[in-house]
Amino acid sequence: MNVNDLPTPALVVNADAFSHNVAAMGAAWPGAKLRPHVKAFKSTSLAKELDAAGHHTFCAATSREVLGMAAAGLGQDLLLANETVNPARLQAMADSGARITVAVDSDATVAAAASNRIREVLIDVDVGCFRCGCPPTDAGRLADLARASGLEVRGVMGYEGHLMMEPGETKKDRVAGAMALLTNAHQAVGGDVVSGGGTGTYRENRWVTELQAGSYTLMDTAYAGADLGFQSALLLWLTVVSVNPGGWAVADGGLKALGMDHGDPTVIGHRVLYCSDEHVTFTAGDLGTLPAVGDKVQVLPAHVDPTVAYHELLHVVRGEDVIDTWPIDLRGW
Amino acid sequence: MNVNDLPTPALVVNADAFSHNVAAMGAAWPGAKLRPHVKAFKSTSLAKELDAAGHHTFCAATSREVLGMAAAGLGQDLLLANETVNPARLQAMADSGARITVAVDSDATVAAAASNRIREVLIDVDVGCFRCGCPPTDAGRLADLARASGLEVRGVMGYEGHLMMEPGETKKDRVAGAMALLTNAHQAVGGDVVSGGGTGTYRENRWVTELQAGSYTLMDTAYAGADLGFQSALLLWLTVVSVNPGGWAVADGGLKALGMDHGDPTVIGHRVLYCSDEHVTFTAGDLGTLPAVGDKVQVLPAHVDPTVAYHELLHVVRGEDVIDTWPIDLRGW
Repeated sequence: MNVNDLPTPALVVNADAFSHNVAAMGAAWPGAKLRPHVKAFKSTSLAKELDAAGHHTFCAATSREVLGMAAAGLGQDLLLANETVNPARLQAMADSGARITVAVDSDATVAAAASNRIREVLIDVDVGCFRCGCPPTDAGRLADLARASGLEVRGVMGYEGHLMMEPGETKKDRVAGAMALLTNAHQAVGGDVVSGGGTGTYRENRWVTELQAGSYTLMDTAYAGADLGFQSALLLWLTVVSVNPGGWAVADGGLKALGMDHGDPTVIGHRVLYCSDEHVTFTAGDLGTLPAVGDKVQVLPAHVDPTVAYHELLHVVRGEDVIDTWPIDLRGW
Repeated sequence: MNVNDLPTPALVVNADAFSHNVAAMGAAWPGAKLRPHVKAFKSTSLAKELDAAGHHTFCAATSREVLGMAAAGLGQDLLLANETVNPARLQAMADSGARITVAVDSDATVAAAASNRIREVLIDVDVGCFRCGCPPTDAGRLADLARASGLEVRGVMGYEGHLMMEPGETKKDRVAGAMALLTNAHQAVGGDVVSGGGTGTYRENRWVTELQAGSYTLMDTAYAGADLGFQSALLLWLTVVSVNPGGWAVADGGLKALGMDHGDPTVIGHRVLYCSDEHVTFTAGDLGTLPAVGDKVQVLPAHVDPTVAYHELLHVVRGEDVIDTWPIDLRGW
């Protein structure tokens, strides 16, 4: 199929940019040094590409992501890099046939893991992100509690998410500070694993034994500004459905096709006025002219992860040819 | 099932608030005076409640919504209140067995409808929203073109979406101005139908023959501020998964469970710090204390429509009892 014949809105992966990103990250963090985070793309088909590139361990943010990866045969070593106290979900992961590790950061999450057949955990440590993770000084006590509860403690994790967009001149020092908290906690916890980091800190973070990165595969406009050496590999293709002689045009994707927490998307060559439920309205930009009804426009999402979560398919394209279709099969919870 | 036992994130409909909203709108716009817009809730089960309340005609924003409504037996009179030039989608709607009307606003959309078995159209008129719709002065010509192309022109539609949040003191005059454009266009077009309006202008709009409203069924925090006489009927229930002694807590739903274009949601009783992919972080609010791990919190989405589009189910609750489950079966395109 030709990319122009896809029904819109259509999420289109640039095959060459994707391959570049996989190779670039794989050079910096080869094999099991990288634990790709499936939350960024929610597709077992994409994950299989990473598996083929030598990365056989994965992390996930939801139990459905974990279960989907296990069902797809990608369960060699799956980390739920998130807390849950839901017994049914913990038991389903434990019974999935995959090797499962879950993050714990409290007495309650340790108890939930231990009482629902989970065998391996990481102690999740707060390194300044204002999200999950125990105080670093509590990590040793939690590890002792987990071991006393019959759990294997593989080590620690800590996500410096607040530093992903940090300016270059201060990022190195601030990542070092966050990771000092994690490595101190690791000394108290023990185990082989120090898991953390992300696409935004893949150059600065030299303390983790495995990097949790996922956004590098597809990238987005917010991250692209940080000049990380990856390419924007994801475009939303839309069809122009209305052109007004007053000087604006409307394409057929909006708030239900785009994650909006980072603001408006970029309609390439044009200037966005606003998004509504199923539309983006734009004026002529650098090109100076508006497209015609029926023309396609290409949109760079401002934030890839919540954009992907609205869609059912990733269409992989080289030139104008759709060479593969990857179901986004890990959506929901 | 008890609402506390739902796996989270869970979209919960307050049955009594929903019934109040349906009754209140039905009193103002009874029967076929209201053409409920399914884009707001994307559920044929919810639509059946409106059908039972006497509203048998519906409008939709996507062809999948139209086809889903037709398949559910709700195809008495379906309006695609949006433009499309996709032949496969137009043909599928035409062949659905339902009565189908589509909006057209250009020569290209008239030609697409006429050449893909569509039989009835409305002329979509720009009334100031900076979205679809022909210039009001072009409506008569387009109607002539449509009739010459073999289409039945049922009338006009025009959506004053830019006035939904207009302050009360100016809303009446501005709606009157927008609807003057539509009624003038209607004189040139002919037909029985003048379709438009929405939840935000249901009191002011006295010019349309049918009101296109959907948000009133569930409401959201942005609209609620406009004091429209409807009740917030939709809550996102989340589970607390982490509580930090530093003074914040984290619950298990975020950017992939909430439409974010209207900003952060409201965690009832607390103060939101920020949302990330699968989390909302909050501090103690008016209650002065944080919940414990495993506790539930209730979240008011800032914008209902793109929130619903992330989910698979609406759980209908009275008191603590889940009395019904409505699949969100009209997602995607």
